[in-house]
Amino acid sequence: MIHVVIAGARGRMGSEAVKAIENAQDMKVVAVYDYKYDGQHLHNGEVREDGQGIPIYTNFEQLAQETTPQVLVDLTVPQTVYRNMELAIEHGIRPVVGTSGLTNEEVDQLTTLAAAHEIGGIIAPNFSIGAVLMMKFSQMAARYIDDIEIIEMHHDQKVDAPSGTATKTVDMINEVRTSKQQGHPDETESMSGARGAEVNGMHIHSVRLPGLVAHQQVLFGGEGELLTLRHDSFNRGSFMPGVLMAVREVLAQKSLVYGLENIIE
Amino acid sequence: MIHVVIAGARGRMGSEAVKAIENAQDMKVVAVYDYKYDGQHLHNGEVREDGQGIPIYTNFEQLAQETTPQVLVDLTVPQTVYRNMELAIEHGIRPVVGTSGLTNEEVDQLTTLAAAHEIGGIIAPNFSIGAVLMMKFSQMAARYIDDIEIIEMHHDQKVDAPSGTATKTVDMINEVRTSKQQGHPDETESMSGARGAEVNGMHIHSVRLPGLVAHQQVLFGGEGELLTLRHDSFNRGSFMPGVLMAVREVLAQKSLVYGLENIIE
Amino acid sequence: MIHVVIAGARGRMGSEAVKAIENAQDMKVVAVYDYKYDGQHLHNGEVREDGQGIPIYTNFEQLAQETTPQVLVDLTVPQTVYRNMELAIEHGIRPVVGTSGLTNEEVDQLTTLAAAHEIGGIIAPNFSIGAVLMMKFSQMAARYIDDIEIIEMHHDQKVDAPSGTATKTVDMINEVRTSKQQGHPDETESMSGARGAEVNGMHIHSVRLPGLVAHQQVLFGGEGELLTLRHDSFNRGSFMPGVLMAVREVLAQKSLVYGLENIIE
Amino acid sequence: MIHVVIAGARGRMGSEAVKAIENAQDMKVVAVYDYKYDGQHLHNGEVREDGQGIPIYTNFEQLAQETTPQVLVDLTVPQTVYRNMELAIEHGIRPVVGTSGLTNEEVDQLTTLAAAHEIGGIIAPNFSIGAVLMMKFSQMAARYIDDIEIIEMHHDQKVDAPSGTATKTVDMINEVRTSKQQGHPDETESMSGARGAEVNGMHIHSVRLPGLVAHQQVLFGGEGELLTLRHDSFNRGSFMPGVLMAVREVLAQKSLVYGLENIIE
Repeated sequence: MIHVVIAGARGRMGSEAVKAIENAQDMKVVAVYDYKYDGQHLHNGEVREDGQGIPIYTNFEQLAQETTPQVLVDLTVPQTVYRNMELAIEHGIRPVVGTSGLTNEEVDQLTTLAAAHEIGGIIAPNFSIGAVLMMKFSQMAARYIDDIEIIEMHHDQKVDAPSGTATKTVDMINEVRTSKQQGHPDETESMSGARGAEVNGMHIHSVRLPGLVAHQQVLFGGEGELLTLRHDSFNRGSFMPGVLMAVREVLAQKSLVYGLENIIE
Repeated sequence: MIHVVIAGARGRMGSEAVKAIENAQDMKVVAVYDYKYDGQHLHNGEVREDGQGIPIYTNFEQLAQETTPQVLVDLTVPQTVYRNMELAIEHGIRPVVGTSGLTNEEVDQLTTLAAAHEIGGIIAPNFSIGAVLMMKFSQMAARYIDDIEIIEMHHDQKVDAPSGTATKTVDMINEVRTSKQQGHPDETESMSGARGAEVNGMHIHSVRLPGLVAHQQVLFGGEGELLTLRHDSFNRGSFMPGVLMAVREVLAQKSLVYGLENIIE
Repeated sequence: MIHVVIAGARGRMGSEAVKAIENAQDMKVVAVYDYKYDGQHLHNGEVREDGQGIPIYTNFEQLAQETTPQVLVDLTVPQTVYRNMELAIEHGIRPVVGTSGLTNEEVDQLTTLAAAHEIGGIIAPNFSIGAVLMMKFSQMAARYIDDIEIIEMHHDQKVDAPSGTATKTVDMINEVRTSKQQGHPDETESMSGARGAEVNGMHIHSVRLPGLVAHQQVLFGGEGELLTLRHDSFNRGSFMPGVLMAVREVLAQKSLVYGLENIIE
Repeated sequence: MIHVVIAGARGRMGSEAVKAIENAQDMKVVAVYDYKYDGQHLHNGEVREDGQGIPIYTNFEQLAQETTPQVLVDLTVPQTVYRNMELAIEHGIRPVVGTSGLTNEEVDQLTTLAAAHEIGGIIAPNFSIGAVLMMKFSQMAARYIDDIEIIEMHHDQKVDAPSGTATKTVDMINEVRTSKQQGHPDETESMSGARGAEVNGMHIHSVRLPGLVAHQQVLFGGEGELLTLRHDSFNRGSFMPGVLMAVREVLAQKSLVYGLENIIE
């Protein structure tokens, strides 16, 4: 039974994580780390004063001593994540963190700190196992088929294009793919933008429509064939299996790992 | 049994049309109209002097008198199509023509001529029934769901983007759809071109990869749902069922019709 | 401004319908018809005694006299729908009903009653415009391409296969398609069931996986080409645009119409 | 420059392989091994007596001595492949073979022979890199998401269902996936076969339509998400990149490898 402390347990992701961990048979939530409600308890998403539920602490020192958790699941905001990870590592608690807000410098510092304490940890900007597999497979396929286009599709309330997942996929592919102009050398657009955005010769297309949730396909075209890797995310529940997997895997990690794709074999 | 004369019978499309018509049980090729080989015959794609096969004529007057065809299937080049259609209509032969090269003015003149002779005809820039259905359904759907994006995908030897089929689809949708900005009002592109080309608020994306042939999907997004109309063309054989359908339908037409979508109910 | 009375307003579909109608600019909810809470009001989904909100009636006679609605939107259960429709028609109120539970005999009786009162109405087993378009287009396409297979995909908590939408699609296609054996005449299955269910030669495949919501694609295969009509339903919000469309269209109907596909042109 | 001998060079696959190897810059065809035409030459697909082209040998001993090839590419029939591989291995020539016709016993014997001669080789039942990646990724994904269905789609002249690729994919998944009932425990079929074939709880669906070529998608459903791995094969040209890759990779192999997926990292 893995003992877990959760930070951000009253938030949307956090409250789902509490439920998911409580439903798993090999782990339990032993404490909630919060900035208020010290001494009270969290029960079915509500803060209670009658002692029923999971104890809430605002002092990490005290939390660590009284509940001795092995893993910290942090689903708070970028501003507090860094300090929380520091505290966890210093107390020998392995951090599992879902944020893309840490700077490269901060990740480096935390990596050094984890190494000093000989402890593993996982920072996962994306907890969806399906999305992580899509990205990892895209990188693998790019070694063999280097004509690639990405189509990502999201609801029409999304402001930025392309999506973070598409950008991350491009970055991962670029680690193994040499820059190469795709398409016909004399290609022209009779309507500007038709061929999409372009990075090192790869093209990226962003579709925005009401009704859509979050979808991406990566297309690899070779002579006479097409390989398509597609991920559809229908709701936030898709993150929970990744959180549980990270909690299990972090016990075996010997250093701070960035990206769920690096613990998938 | 419908009697057909073919112009362009020695070309790639034309030779396939001869085969397709000969294999159909309700029609036959009675003559070939050509600019050379007068008096010779076409047999299994070869010009023969021994009288075996379909008779070749370079004189339309003589052809019409001796073989009395009901329908002219013209699969030649834009330059000759106009004159061929004129000749056919003047001789009471209904033209079925597969070209997108006629000007609007020429189409108007031929329409007037056909009306004067009280005869029907069909000009079909696209003989693929599947593609025509996709376009027709797109127009119909646009009356009910007006958030629309088009993704067309072709082999990487195609020079222009977007494709002619995509442009035609946009035109047909625009006949029924009021211009409307789609996506988030404050939408931004962190990579230029990501959101594709834009016409009246609709977005069009052109994918080019080796291996692909000719594919298009039209996406309609509504609250909580997505309707996708997709056509895949794998080879040119896809045009022949449309040619046969047009030969049959032209007998019932009372005027010159432009576009196969207008004889589909 | 179309005046609407809603039956079933406290249910899941009904409460969404109240919201959707209140948000539309050309219609408003003037009354709620219920079996209890007479004289009270419905406000933001709550029954109130302070007179704020939409008035609730348990007596249809009184409701009709005091609020004079033009349209009844009934989102109750099959057992009460018949009587509610009768009452509405007798009071000159046009019914818009979303249920698949009425028998053919009941539909016939209501059709006769509506004709006697010279009033239109709409019974829609499926209010999703996207799904209805998919089915209607499938029927239209089947006139031209008669090699057809259906793949429907739903979450793994669905007990029955194939889905009601797939069955309805097959029925609509069968109205225009002659029975025809598809596939190779000597086709064999090395694993039983691989080729799916079969109706008049068409094949139907039911996929069940966690994560999926409700999806269907209808595939039409012709020489060298494939036409795919696909509908994805991501959540129940997809029904509301259909409800609003039916409320608007029912005013122009002159008889009782069964199926939203029959008011789509 | 890798020196290659080809067996089966006059066949459909073989003649394409000759062209592909001649077009590659890092390899050339130094000899053709055949059962007739000894001493003549193969030039642009034609057997010539004037000494122009690639020399044809019917005696492997002589071929090996005079042309000293490093790799044998065998695209003949299952009956001759075994003996050809034996000859190649005994002469220190690494075999690259595209056949699924060898028995397990024969593969074992050839593996032993290759080990004795300290030489590598590759037997590839499928040379399509895209198809092999789809199968390999399916196996990898099955470790993390074990609710899986396969939809394979082929032209309607295919007699057997499911396809060999689908069967192979199932086998590879079964190596890592524990048997598990999928779908609702009380699931019923109102039309027999709707849920497809079933192996260890996984479901397989075979679509057959005119127009289709060879397509497969493997669907992985998790909470709130779907991962789809899809391969489309449009024509036989898709095998050549795999042949070239195998010729390059076989030089680094230290034993006989069965399946292209085992040389992909």
